[in-house]
Amino acid sequence: MSTYRAPLSDMQFVMNELAGLSEIATLPGYEEATPDTVAVILEEASRFATDVLDPLNASGDREGATRLPDGSVRTPEGFKAAYEQFVQSGWNGVNKPAAYGGQHLPQLVAAGIEEMWHAANMAFDLCPLLTQGAIDAIELVGTPEQKARFLPPMVAGTWTGTMNLTEPQAGSDLAAVRMRAEPQADGTYKLYGQKIFITYGEHDFTDNIIHLVLARTPDAPAGVKGISLFLVPKFLVDENGSLGRRNDVQCVSLEHKLGIHASPTAVMAYGDHGGAVGYLIGEKNRGLEAMFIMMNQARFSVGMEGVGLSERAYQRAVDYARQRVQGRAVGIDKQGKPAPIIEHPDIRRMLMTMRAYTEAMRALGYVTAAAMDNARHAREPSERAQHQAFVDLMIPIVKGWCTETAQEVTYLGVQVHGGMGFIEETGAAQYSRDARIITIYEGTTGIQANDLVGRKMTRDDGATAKRVAAQIDKVAAHLASQDDASLNAIGVRLAAATAALQNAIDWMLASYAAKPRTALAGSVPYLNLWGVVCGGWQMARAAKVAVDRLAQGEGDATFMRTKIATARFYAESLLPLAEAYAQAVVSGSPGALALTAEQF
Amino acid sequence: MSTYRAPLSDMQFVMNELAGLSEIATLPGYEEATPDTVAVILEEASRFATDVLDPLNASGDREGATRLPDGSVRTPEGFKAAYEQFVQSGWNGVNKPAAYGGQHLPQLVAAGIEEMWHAANMAFDLCPLLTQGAIDAIELVGTPEQKARFLPPMVAGTWTGTMNLTEPQAGSDLAAVRMRAEPQADGTYKLYGQKIFITYGEHDFTDNIIHLVLARTPDAPAGVKGISLFLVPKFLVDENGSLGRRNDVQCVSLEHKLGIHASPTAVMAYGDHGGAVGYLIGEKNRGLEAMFIMMNQARFSVGMEGVGLSERAYQRAVDYARQRVQGRAVGIDKQGKPAPIIEHPDIRRMLMTMRAYTEAMRALGYVTAAAMDNARHAREPSERAQHQAFVDLMIPIVKGWCTETAQEVTYLGVQVHGGMGFIEETGAAQYSRDARIITIYEGTTGIQANDLVGRKMTRDDGATAKRVAAQIDKVAAHLASQDDASLNAIGVRLAAATAALQNAIDWMLASYAAKPRTALAGSVPYLNLWGVVCGGWQMARAAKVAVDRLAQGEGDATFMRTKIATARFYAESLLPLAEAYAQAVVSGSPGALALTAEQF
Repeated sequence: MSTYRAPLSDMQFVMNELAGLSEIATLPGYEEATPDTVAVILEEASRFATDVLDPLNASGDREGATRLPDGSVRTPEGFKAAYEQFVQSGWNGVNKPAAYGGQHLPQLVAAGIEEMWHAANMAFDLCPLLTQGAIDAIELVGTPEQKARFLPPMVAGTWTGTMNLTEPQAGSDLAAVRMRAEPQADGTYKLYGQKIFITYGEHDFTDNIIHLVLARTPDAPAGVKGISLFLVPKFLVDENGSLGRRNDVQCVSLEHKLGIHASPTAVMAYGDHGGAVGYLIGEKNRGLEAMFIMMNQARFSVGMEGVGLSERAYQRAVDYARQRVQGRAVGIDKQGKPAPIIEHPDIRRMLMTMRAYTEAMRALGYVTAAAMDNARHAREPSERAQHQAFVDLMIPIVKGWCTETAQEVTYLGVQVHGGMGFIEETGAAQYSRDARIITIYEGTTGIQANDLVGRKMTRDDGATAKRVAAQIDKVAAHLASQDDASLNAIGVRLAAATAALQNAIDWMLASYAAKPRTALAGSVPYLNLWGVVCGGWQMARAAKVAVDRLAQGEGDATFMRTKIATARFYAESLLPLAEAYAQAVVSGSPGALALTAEQF
Repeated sequence: MSTYRAPLSDMQFVMNELAGLSEIATLPGYEEATPDTVAVILEEASRFATDVLDPLNASGDREGATRLPDGSVRTPEGFKAAYEQFVQSGWNGVNKPAAYGGQHLPQLVAAGIEEMWHAANMAFDLCPLLTQGAIDAIELVGTPEQKARFLPPMVAGTWTGTMNLTEPQAGSDLAAVRMRAEPQADGTYKLYGQKIFITYGEHDFTDNIIHLVLARTPDAPAGVKGISLFLVPKFLVDENGSLGRRNDVQCVSLEHKLGIHASPTAVMAYGDHGGAVGYLIGEKNRGLEAMFIMMNQARFSVGMEGVGLSERAYQRAVDYARQRVQGRAVGIDKQGKPAPIIEHPDIRRMLMTMRAYTEAMRALGYVTAAAMDNARHAREPSERAQHQAFVDLMIPIVKGWCTETAQEVTYLGVQVHGGMGFIEETGAAQYSRDARIITIYEGTTGIQANDLVGRKMTRDDGATAKRVAAQIDKVAAHLASQDDASLNAIGVRLAAATAALQNAIDWMLASYAAKPRTALAGSVPYLNLWGVVCGGWQMARAAKVAVDRLAQGEGDATFMRTKIATARFYAESLLPLAEAYAQAVVSGSPGALALTAEQF
């Protein structure tokens, strides 16, 4: 029915024209990531996504992961073989450190690759994604010996990693973590307790699983400053890397979820039979700090899940709209010949909405990824700091806005299918169900919005926020001054939206200082305001490039014209939401807080 | 965990203060529907919803309906008994004609009752709802003999009814219906063909099922003017009403759906074994006209499904937010005691959004229901015509906007639950899955929007639309002139939103005449614009009543204050969407239509 085709033209347009891939390729260590090499890598990844991952997506959803009576977990038919092929092809190590066997590609390129995995089979990709989180943590705070022992197989993908944060009473609030870690005479610890929502906590892909676990030592202070990070392997590992005895950690059940059925979400029991052997990773009582640093990466990836799912939902909707014949095309065919529904104006509006949002999210995501590369590798410390400030501001926006927007895009994907969209076999509903988790895990949208308002924006008194808004305003003014009708229209709308954003920034800075509750009641509309304006910013930049390329007679003219039309649609149909969000921010909070808890 | 409690205070407030129940009770035939009697009836219905239907909702979803090898269908455990109790208590006949055993309550009261069924167990209520559609059709165009034979058991609920419209190639476009009906010598017909998406097409509730089926006679012209309506009983019925032989109609499979699992959605095969005996209902070739008249009722009911699901999702979210302890309440508790999440500002914003939308939808739905009563029974023909014009305009808005809004409300219901929302056992996700069908069946939102623009608005050159907008504007101006700060704020926001609506009406009238495709590309934002403004209109009226009651020292003061705060939140946080929708209407269409089909 519908086969995933990676949008390579748009990916490369965004990487080259908006995110500055050729400059990234001049950074130390990234010299091999030239646009030509990257094009080859993306092409190869797209084949893997199309040929191996996409065909397993629906069957994996139907079959789901199964816990067997012995506590092992069987992944759906074909997943283990696909994982082995993924690892053998080297995909697990694309952006991992070369020192441990990775290919050390820029984050910008990795973002494009992971978009494809998410699009083709998000439930599959959660395993490599969680492994990446565990690798990042070990690399960040592990000892040289720990890195040497655990990172090479994890980078290769022959072992996977998990992140064990949540407990029944400790979700968004990690201060409430209770899992105990008792020091042993040999310097190791024994862990006792239960963790929930552990993605790929147990599976049949690999021989070993490396669990990273938040827990408290007996002498730890209460709250977030008493949480340490431990490494708990499923099978103990001796000095030469061989697997030893089974550790005291078990998957005791799997959750029955709305989506991502193929991905086992485990309840993990530690220490039911004497204690799970664990090793302290990083400093005692500072586990949460390490966790928060690597969480930026994970949150970015979840934002890219939004992009991938949106792209896939869009492609399926377009395929269906092209082949489904129903009704007559108003105002085109007077003889009333039955038409494919893609000819109907409202279907067009839905497809354009899906397309415009997806392209805007992709552009924002890749531009942020490029800033991550610059923040790590730019030559001047001041440059690095400036890029890092931009990244810090953008992470909650990419995570929050791309995941919220993916809800609407996947919703429309179902809607384009009409009644068939509600039938599971069609496949459209799965993207919508799978997408439903992404506004929740790695911090809900509310948590992202609190991070944006309470940390990222206020810690420099809004300096970065204002700087970015001024940059957007400059783009808007430049486009509004153009003769080209599309650029002009885009510029005018972007200028209005940016003015609303700037007003909201000022309001938010003043309010958060004076009345934090009032400010936080508007934090999610504020995040969405940032998102829709930043998306418009990138689409405006894209339209300008496209107009220039057309004038120069360069590039694919059809692609450039499509980009301009899509950017204009975004500016005229979607960007007006900015003013509505801004209004909700600056005047909605008192109403949101007016009732007592009993009045609900 | 969470038990449904019908929002009787708000229901009665809306019926009495906004929808004019006491005036409805003066209409011929409705004399018994006094506010006091209605209060007793609503109270009884709420008990049935709470005690019988709500407890079966989650188990029905888990178990689903099952087709057995013999073609019969088993509904989930407890459903058959609940249906029998429903029928015995007389709930099936509340708004049915007294002549056939019904209680002939006003539509206004029936709307409140059906909201409760939808809230407690929408999958269950689809059976009575479809029966109602079939009753309406038979009552509208059946012969006296047909009415006498079929209506009494259908009104009692001892037989149910179905509506058979859709075929694989004929969904939104009923002109493509192919089912054949061949006349027989005895005046009956034999039907041949397949229908899909038949809700409760087969089940174990009752001894007989009366299928209403769209089909073509051999001499019928092509297109919509060649479709006739046939009555096809599962078991033939003799003159004295006894069941005869099994008819040639079979459920050949059930769909595997995203939601409403307890409700069997059947593929029905007619005439595989010699022909299904059917009776022409109404005039030959005019089946679609009858269908469209009764569709108003069905579309209204689907809008009320949006209200019911939203209310239920809201209640579950509030229950969870009260009991789930997580984090500290910013700006309230400096000692940092763990707080229930209802104290967090963003949770408040979500709950207020759910609450405000739900109340606005309820008010708009009930006011429309009252107009349906007036349109049928008001004494003066001119009054009836004016009410009917209002109803006609509102039906696509109630159907389209309430169902679209229910997506957001049920989405937020999951979001309030965080990670637990994604786990099916929690129950929050079911409302969201169930809600997913309501923007599709009985005409997608796009179909509603086409109806609004292409029929309801243009057939009187926008006269009714402009009249209603002027009415809203008057309310806005009145409130904006008040000293009360809340009323003033509501009035100001409503005035701005109404201005945007009026501008969009003018644009739409001009555009539809000149460029129908351009107009229709903006039709869904236009419908949403109408919806959000009409919701704001009703909330503004409610706030005014509440302020007056408080001043008079009448009514429940806490209820009145809550209503004012909720209306203000609606005006300040949700109503600003009006301008964004209007912008999309008046400037978004060219972009929506800019690409060729190949460019997608």
